[in-house]
Amino acid sequence: SVNEERLLGRLRELGSIGRDKDGRLVRLAASDADKDGRDRLIAWMQEAGLDVAVDRIGNIFGIWAPIQADDTAKPLMLGSHIDTVINAGVLDGCYGVLSGLEVVETLKSEGFNPSRPIAIAAFTNEEGVRYAPDMMGSLVHVGGLDADEALATVGTDGSVLGEELARIGYAGPHQPGFLQPHAYIELHIEQGPILEREETPVGAVENLQGISWQRVTIEGDANHAGTTPISMRRDAGLAAARVITFLRDRATASNTPTVATVGCMEFEPNAINVIPSKATFTVDLRDPDEEKLLAEEAALATYLDTIADDEQVTITTKCLARFQPVTFDSGIVAAVVEAATARGLKSKRMTSGAGHDAQMIARIAPSGMIFVPSIGGISHNPKEFTPDTDLVAGANVLLDVVRNLTAP
Amino acid sequence: SVNEERLLGRLRELGSIGRDKDGRLVRLAASDADKDGRDRLIAWMQEAGLDVAVDRIGNIFGIWAPIQADDTAKPLMLGSHIDTVINAGVLDGCYGVLSGLEVVETLKSEGFNPSRPIAIAAFTNEEGVRYAPDMMGSLVHVGGLDADEALATVGTDGSVLGEELARIGYAGPHQPGFLQPHAYIELHIEQGPILEREETPVGAVENLQGISWQRVTIEGDANHAGTTPISMRRDAGLAAARVITFLRDRATASNTPTVATVGCMEFEPNAINVIPSKATFTVDLRDPDEEKLLAEEAALATYLDTIADDEQVTITTKCLARFQPVTFDSGIVAAVVEAATARGLKSKRMTSGAGHDAQMIARIAPSGMIFVPSIGGISHNPKEFTPDTDLVAGANVLLDVVRNLTAP
Ligand SMILES: NC(=O)NCCC(=O)O
Ligand SMILES: NC(=O)NCCC(=O)O
Repeated sequence: SVNEERLLGRLRELGSIGRDKDGRLVRLAASDADKDGRDRLIAWMQEAGLDVAVDRIGNIFGIWAPIQADDTAKPLMLGSHIDTVINAGVLDGCYGVLSGLEVVETLKSEGFNPSRPIAIAAFTNEEGVRYAPDMMGSLVHVGGLDADEALATVGTDGSVLGEELARIGYAGPHQPGFLQPHAYIELHIEQGPILEREETPVGAVENLQGISWQRVTIEGDANHAGTTPISMRRDAGLAAARVITFLRDRATASNTPTVATVGCMEFEPNAINVIPSKATFTVDLRDPDEEKLLAEEAALATYLDTIADDEQVTITTKCLARFQPVTFDSGIVAAVVEAATARGLKSKRMTSGAGHDAQMIARIAPSGMIFVPSIGGISHNPKEFTPDTDLVAGANVLLDVVRNLTAP
Repeated sequence: SVNEERLLGRLRELGSIGRDKDGRLVRLAASDADKDGRDRLIAWMQEAGLDVAVDRIGNIFGIWAPIQADDTAKPLMLGSHIDTVINAGVLDGCYGVLSGLEVVETLKSEGFNPSRPIAIAAFTNEEGVRYAPDMMGSLVHVGGLDADEALATVGTDGSVLGEELARIGYAGPHQPGFLQPHAYIELHIEQGPILEREETPVGAVENLQGISWQRVTIEGDANHAGTTPISMRRDAGLAAARVITFLRDRATASNTPTVATVGCMEFEPNAINVIPSKATFTVDLRDPDEEKLLAEEAALATYLDTIADDEQVTITTKCLARFQPVTFDSGIVAAVVEAATARGLKSKRMTSGAGHDAQMIARIAPSGMIFVPSIGGISHNPKEFTPDTDLVAGANVLLDVVRNLTAP
């Protein structure tokens, strides 16, 4: 089994890096805080005797290529990401990367002799909060997005990803995709309420929702709040509010709703006595069924036309991310269930509500994921929490799956 | 009659001061841009031979005390403000201040001998965009708000008004209220569509709407956009959107709506895949009838309770400004109508939709306002426009009213 104290200690330590002045964990992709987290991770990888390689998009790989293994063979890859959202919890992403490292160190200390190299990956900008799309590093890794295009992405703060990576010293020399995995396994917190509710410590993730991200810009006319009759208003803020309530009312009316979230919102000129001339906001739609996701996108587009007419505003949209639902490798799913059972742990085959790097890597190699419970289903929130026993159990299931898949 | 070229030239010149890098006019109260505008105004006042006095809240007075006049008499005061909203037009406020100055210069050059001093006032922070409440300088002038309390106001950008006034050199030595007016007249653009629609060049303003400003803060829970079931969400952004649509639907359902505007909106953490934990926005309600304004405030409060329950969020409100409707002095209203008629100009007795310094000064002296048309009813917008003939006609009506009220 893994070294619990080392794993939990590292989770705590990485979680202490990137605290802002209010104590919030904000380790956005390619920020100074991200650099500090990356430096810490690489130090641990080097202490564990791994070869470290960084590619042009900043993906970090720690490679264990034991001399007994066939080192021309493609590695088994374990990983996730260490960038965070704003005011994040400490587990999202970091748990998968540090557990991968923990598994390798455990196998090394056991004198285990894997049939192929094992690589630990920390992909750049999985969260997509500063730069869209999310899962960017793994998407570039699989050739789904050109590296130069990704590096040119302008962030919510006006920064350019490529410049920021160079600034923090993580624009690496390797071509993205240089390290092709034999298979990929990602251990992650569920971030949803299902495992806790069903008192099940292990999730064997079978598939993952499709994700559609758009930026919607509504333009009306600034005018005086006191003098402008209601009938003469072209209120961009009102039109934005109507879109938010439309999405929610639609979701509430469905038994199997496409989840819809408006997370970002800006008004212009954002003055108390001025009717907003502009509202800019994001729409995040997700569904495990591609047909339903397409239908929801179409329904939103139709509604935007209606509201543009009704409120006499101009509406434009920009796609920020679009990923189809993904089905994971049935062999890996079965291996996860089997490993959990062997440890006497109840497991559940389930869908992932969140996007993950595994979703990208699945395009080029058999992939799968292991979930552990999130108490209260809370994530993207400092209250994100998984009991230590569950964290350790998940890492042990990963250990056993890796042992099986690389048995000599 | 007034010197058209001088008046229109100064309006253009003052309108060129305080342009941001995008060419937008942003001369927020007590900003660097406001300092530049103030410096320019004071230079013109001094060229016109006026005594300039600045009080602790930064109100500027240019005083003409001709030796023939009874200089122990209270002055007739003409004025408005020169601070602007974000991306403003050039007329709102400046027109009243520069026309007052123009009237004094015209009377001086005519050798007119007024029965009492005439003072031109430019009140601090009429717009209320950076610091609430609006009409702050004139409110302090009449003793409706303590000067020290006003100076301690924290702005939308976190600045403190008193510190900013000191920084730009406009924390003057005089006690607010040191110059009590005999009467007050404010010339202003209508900022609404009525005069243009009725092809009437002069508005004789009889009364002014009540204004209610609140900041509403809604707190829910941040959570993951992909994994959190709709039924488990405590979405502060959704609750804010419901408030906006509630206010609009209520206004639309009424024949005599209380106008309601949500001009400012902020989400936290403002990240694409995070359900908003917090939404902060402003509500501006206005009605010429105090009973109706009270009823609207009560209806909003009741709705906030309902939505707090429905969406499981916490809602707090803070009053930023609350002014009752005001009725102006009937003698001054009649004098405006009479002066317009004498110049062959059609006039209309009307209500002001916007708040004005005259509304505050009315608490301590007979006050009144003159309106000129706003093309398209557009204001708080760079497209704010009044034809030169109307601007000149309004200034001439002011000239004649001043002549009548200060006839020797
Ligand atoms: N796992 C996770 O939070 N990923 C971020 C991308 C997303 O699902 O929004
Ligand atoms: N006249 C004018 O725009 N005043 C600003 C205060 C307000 O009415 O919102």
